[in-house]
Amino acid sequence: MIAKTPKAPYYAVIFTNIRTEIEEGYAETAQEMVRLAEAQEGYLGHESVREGLGITVSYWSNREAILAWKQQTDHLLAQKMGREKWYESYKTRICLVERDYEFCV
Amino acid sequence: MIAKTPKAPYYAVIFTNIRTEIEEGYAETAQEMVRLAEAQEGYLGHESVREGLGITVSYWSNREAILAWKQQTDHLLAQKMGREKWYESYKTRICLVERDYEFCV
Repeated sequence: MIAKTPKAPYYAVIFTNIRTEIEEGYAETAQEMVRLAEAQEGYLGHESVREGLGITVSYWSNREAILAWKQQTDHLLAQKMGREKWYESYKTRICLVERDYEFCV
Repeated sequence: MIAKTPKAPYYAVIFTNIRTEIEEGYAETAQEMVRLAEAQEGYLGHESVREGLGITVSYWSNREAILAWKQQTDHLLAQKMGREKWYESYKTRICLVERDYEFCV
């Protein structure tokens, strides 16, 4: 569940969001977007949690891969529907992961 | 609940984690760490969600502020206790936020 990412540097997109109460089409579209993102060049993994507030972090090889995903046709439509129906508010942050470290029992 | 951060660039620390079943001392320490982090120079805000997997993202003015917080005495002890008791595994990613954008209804 913790994304297995390669040695830094790589990129992260932090998508923090608050949903509306509209469920129609949301789960199916979210699932389809994961499927499509995984098929994009440069996709490295993602982590997603919701507890009222939602945080989804996706990891990418480089900035170009993030831009290509942002402009992918089905994703553009999903973003539009997101603003019109599913999200009350969101913030997207494009980040260069400079270092990382981990711990396992 | 979505952190109000200043104009990019700034830094983010993505802390993705899986807890053990040990609750003893966890909530109190987590709360105290938030209080102490907020008092650190360069702290800009944080977002935290758990749904099995936990994701906490904290935002900072610069790398030096992150390093100072990592080495803060009470936080060092909490990190040690975290590895010994509260976390099954975690990954910490230090990121430069290059761009961000937001949406509000």
